Amino acid sequence: MDTPLSRRTMMTATGATTLAAGLTFASHADAAPPAVVPAAPVAPEADPSWKTCLAVARAVLVLGENDEPLVPRYSRILLEEGLPRGRGKAKKVLVVGAGPAGLVAADLLGRAGHEVTVIEANGNRVGGRVKTFRTGGHEGAAQPFADPKQYAEAGAMRIPDSHPLVTGLMDSLGLKRRRFHLVDVDASGRPANRTWIQANGIRIRRARYQQRPQALNRSFGVPTQYEDVPASDIYRSALAPARALIDGKQGQELLDGWAKVIQRYGSWSMFRYLTEEAKLDVRTIDLIGTVQNVTSRIHLSFLHSFLSSALISPDTSFYELPDGTATLTDALYARVKDAVRLDRRAVRVEHGPGGGVTVHTVSEGRDGKVVQEAFSGDEAIITVPYAGLRHVTFTPPLPYGKRRAITELHYDAATKVLLEFSRRWWEFTEQDWKRELDAVRPGLYEAYQRGKAPADGSLLGAHPSVPKGHISDGQRTHYAAHRAVQRDQPEAAAVIGGGSTTDNPNRFMFEPSHPVAGSRGGVLLASYSWSDDALKWDSFDSEERYPRALGGVQDVYGQRVEVFYTGMGRTQSWMRDPYAYGEASVLLPGQHTELFSDVPSAEGPLHFAGCHTSVKPAWIEGALESAVRTALEVHTRVLRP
Amino acid sequence: MDTPLSRRTMMTATGATTLAAGLTFASHADAAPPAVVPAAPVAPEADPSWKTCLAVARAVLVLGENDEPLVPRYSRILLEEGLPRGRGKAKKVLVVGAGPAGLVAADLLGRAGHEVTVIEANGNRVGGRVKTFRTGGHEGAAQPFADPKQYAEAGAMRIPDSHPLVTGLMDSLGLKRRRFHLVDVDASGRPANRTWIQANGIRIRRARYQQRPQALNRSFGVPTQYEDVPASDIYRSALAPARALIDGKQGQELLDGWAKVIQRYGSWSMFRYLTEEAKLDVRTIDLIGTVQNVTSRIHLSFLHSFLSSALISPDTSFYELPDGTATLTDALYARVKDAVRLDRRAVRVEHGPGGGVTVHTVSEGRDGKVVQEAFSGDEAIITVPYAGLRHVTFTPPLPYGKRRAITELHYDAATKVLLEFSRRWWEFTEQDWKRELDAVRPGLYEAYQRGKAPADGSLLGAHPSVPKGHISDGQRTHYAAHRAVQRDQPEAAAVIGGGSTTDNPNRFMFEPSHPVAGSRGGVLLASYSWSDDALKWDSFDSEERYPRALGGVQDVYGQRVEVFYTGMGRTQSWMRDPYAYGEASVLLPGQHTELFSDVPSAEGPLHFAGCHTSVKPAWIEGALESAVRTALEVHTRVLRP
Repeated sequence: MDTPLSRRTMMTATGATTLAAGLTFASHADAAPPAVVPAAPVAPEADPSWKTCLAVARAVLVLGENDEPLVPRYSRILLEEGLPRGRGKAKKVLVVGAGPAGLVAADLLGRAGHEVTVIEANGNRVGGRVKTFRTGGHEGAAQPFADPKQYAEAGAMRIPDSHPLVTGLMDSLGLKRRRFHLVDVDASGRPANRTWIQANGIRIRRARYQQRPQALNRSFGVPTQYEDVPASDIYRSALAPARALIDGKQGQELLDGWAKVIQRYGSWSMFRYLTEEAKLDVRTIDLIGTVQNVTSRIHLSFLHSFLSSALISPDTSFYELPDGTATLTDALYARVKDAVRLDRRAVRVEHGPGGGVTVHTVSEGRDGKVVQEAFSGDEAIITVPYAGLRHVTFTPPLPYGKRRAITELHYDAATKVLLEFSRRWWEFTEQDWKRELDAVRPGLYEAYQRGKAPADGSLLGAHPSVPKGHISDGQRTHYAAHRAVQRDQPEAAAVIGGGSTTDNPNRFMFEPSHPVAGSRGGVLLASYSWSDDALKWDSFDSEERYPRALGGVQDVYGQRVEVFYTGMGRTQSWMRDPYAYGEASVLLPGQHTELFSDVPSAEGPLHFAGCHTSVKPAWIEGALESAVRTALEVHTRVLRP
Repeated sequence: MDTPLSRRTMMTATGATTLAAGLTFASHADAAPPAVVPAAPVAPEADPSWKTCLAVARAVLVLGENDEPLVPRYSRILLEEGLPRGRGKAKKVLVVGAGPAGLVAADLLGRAGHEVTVIEANGNRVGGRVKTFRTGGHEGAAQPFADPKQYAEAGAMRIPDSHPLVTGLMDSLGLKRRRFHLVDVDASGRPANRTWIQANGIRIRRARYQQRPQALNRSFGVPTQYEDVPASDIYRSALAPARALIDGKQGQELLDGWAKVIQRYGSWSMFRYLTEEAKLDVRTIDLIGTVQNVTSRIHLSFLHSFLSSALISPDTSFYELPDGTATLTDALYARVKDAVRLDRRAVRVEHGPGGGVTVHTVSEGRDGKVVQEAFSGDEAIITVPYAGLRHVTFTPPLPYGKRRAITELHYDAATKVLLEFSRRWWEFTEQDWKRELDAVRPGLYEAYQRGKAPADGSLLGAHPSVPKGHISDGQRTHYAAHRAVQRDQPEAAAVIGGGSTTDNPNRFMFEPSHPVAGSRGGVLLASYSWSDDALKWDSFDSEERYPRALGGVQDVYGQRVEVFYTGMGRTQSWMRDPYAYGEASVLLPGQHTELFSDVPSAEGPLHFAGCHTSVKPAWIEGALESAVRTALEVHTRVLRP
């Protein structure tokens, strides 16, 4: 054993007894670093990394240090009782960032009698990665779509039923949530699964694909054994070895099961898992990667995708908020508005071990003039994404583990392109199409059917319902130059909600689950992409991006949808948002075991919140857990004299 | 063999033998681990993936299908003879992209009598990722720095001696190359190794670190065995198992050696290699990751970093061109200028199997109006990065393998921040500093020494040599708010060329190797970062980015450098360049074996060039190889009647 500190060496050496020899686990140099795949004969618990794996498993299950479930307590604090009473003197608390975590932490602390100031970098809105494109609102009065009633989500758009804090919070705020249809429904609200899967030039409805996957699967060149198995089933089977460690378990067994998942696969990418554990060939990986949305993050942590696969599945119920997810942050903002200072970007944090924090900020928007300002308090809750903290100076420097976490925690890109249509054509039957197209001009329905309608952009927004003046010449030229490939016209989608999947650059499209009251139109999420796919969209300015996204929609739904395009769209690149640094922290292989323990930990008077401090990045639930946790930390921490 | 398309499945089949031989590589479970590390007793050649590995190995060594070295032939064509004579009729050839690959291919084909049109998306320059910020030039007359004589590289800045095509090309064009000092030199031109390594609050000169690495290594918490080993030595030892397969070999043995490297590690990330093959612990990986520039790309392909480590080392000699690398593309452009159409972004390619290509373009810059235009020819050489081709429509669609390569080939970010100083303070001795600072005001030298000079930005550009008017109030405010952490003043750097390494966000800094004639100032590459590090810089606009980069420089060299800052800088984010999509194709684990064979291959009349079609992404040499290859393809391909 030439390298006693190397977890991998230990595992390779596999001397069972040597390993059991009491190597303790800590974050620093005198201890054993975390683990990967233990050799089979060794009991998992004998691996010195086991404690780290257990710690991450506790985070997955939201358990405290003594394995007690934290959510019931968090829930009581958040939704009923507030922070515990009579816990010492009131403090001056700085909260950096007015996303869900910051707003909730500020509210809890404020209600408990602390003096809270919230510093927010954005000059015109709060909410973080909760952002609704809508008319009015605190983002300003600009009207994002041709129909002023229309709105759409730049960020969080679906709230899983399995997230008790956020669903409970919406209920407690009196926000009436309704179903978000991850799977499209029919007129009576039953799952229909009629949206499209399109890849390698083949277009097939989801329900049909589940029954007859052969043609699509063959187009990927999968081995014979997989030709008749739907991608979702292949993926489920592929994940079975990992799921077997946790499925059907409870309590301590479940905790141990998760720790084993983390121990075995914690330093693996999804690519490695699918090739080495699931033993899939590249073509089958291409298939499930394309259909099940695995490809773009396949090189990132297995754990991230594994956790997501459990969450974003047709079996999960999702909710949304009428008038947009921002109504949630509106309600939270209303409670703490007086404490919030917009347009202050934190650039430097001075702190002392005994308490006392000064956060230096610069404005970037106010009157175009850069203004420096400093805020002081006893303690601070910092909700800035770690990617953003990389450029924040801490004086004195943070300890080694925290610095590495801030430097290395990986954030992934995500980009949405939203297009407005004057009619919800995705809900149309063929009769609807015939009626509406022939209203543009007689015979147009037939012309589209035969692929004979002009593709030069002259029919963009041609339907009488489209308000004039929003389609620029530039958009028409880009449209004509780019031009949708498919000239065949598939039958009417006739779906409500749900979304289609394509191997074209749009990748994932989502239809709105509900109409906007008083509007016959709708905003389609024409493209939702991650990682490299997203960065490529970011190379196009809006005038080119919208007609391209429209082309990708036409590629799947047919050329004729163009007549309803209003020329108005909105797009959100989370990697280019100057304060978001990406959609979320999507960890690299190994980062859960090597960095994660240093992410949520407090450093003296500095507390760290935000979804990245949970293992639910990108989910509001993770942000809320962290808000309650850090509010408790601040509330109960005894200041040194 | 049920899945002829999958190497992994095939390897599982092979694994049966492997297991029978009692070798348990595998993770756990009861089955054979696919791929990657073949069990020793099985001859590597018995692995069905061997052919793929050999093909990639040929690309590494630039060998033809019959293992013949291609460079001598390419070299003759490029530098002496041009394309072979008398090879059929002249063709109309479209070249998409006017980077080095496109310009050279166009020139070769034009000289051979073909009618060539080059389509370039940029409206104001050619050169691709060769780009020099300079006064005048074909990018327009804007003056990038306060001193009009100053220039600096946005892209390619160092040409390795080991790249015969590009060095030969420079020579044949009469461009006088001179040494680029990767390692700083003393006044007599000898390597001095006096630049700084700074991490975990410790600052040490490179030469000193090589002798006494203990303090810095301990600051990372490395195990005792590594405390006294310089990071470069640890890294070299770590790479030894892979190097052992190729070192000292020639001919067929070398080819087989490379194929074995690819077979064993082709689907590994550098992270996996360092943990599982080199058996390093996380802390040691942090050390070499920070000092040897491994961290930012550690999750990407092992092969990429392994190839780079052989190339970018203190043992390699590098060259640069006086007046900038763009003088190379200037010279190439001069030869084909009449054939080049600027401001045409290719958006759609129609092609037929028998020949005949139409490339549809849009302008994005000309007169602000979007103009559509189409160009037709017999064949086309497409040099667009594959990340860019993802949004180019091909009619008919390209075959499966090509489409996957275009969809998935990974591009990595890189960002440079360049700052201008009115004096080359990095060359100063302490005497120089004393003289120059006291020229600003008496006692200032001493004030900086004692960390007592004001840090509010009032001394920015305070030296009399700094021309007035370039430092905005905004820059001063950002500077004061951000403020460099280190207030201690290290001794004068007194270096020429080379660069320093830091764990602060700047990461890598390079001093110019030579003065600009007639100028006492210089432009420092204040920050050169990759991957996630680069994307974080991209969140700051210039007014904030420059003072932050200056702060990072001060952190390493001391606060006093500020007096020479002119307020002028330039920055290049290759990920945000709308036509570059990143610095280069830096492949994900597995992509060399799974995608690469489909990258350079022609499809009917379409030929694919650019550095991404070689295994030397980001290097001009790879672009030139591809230029000669595709020019030959076009020149020798017989058109169908």
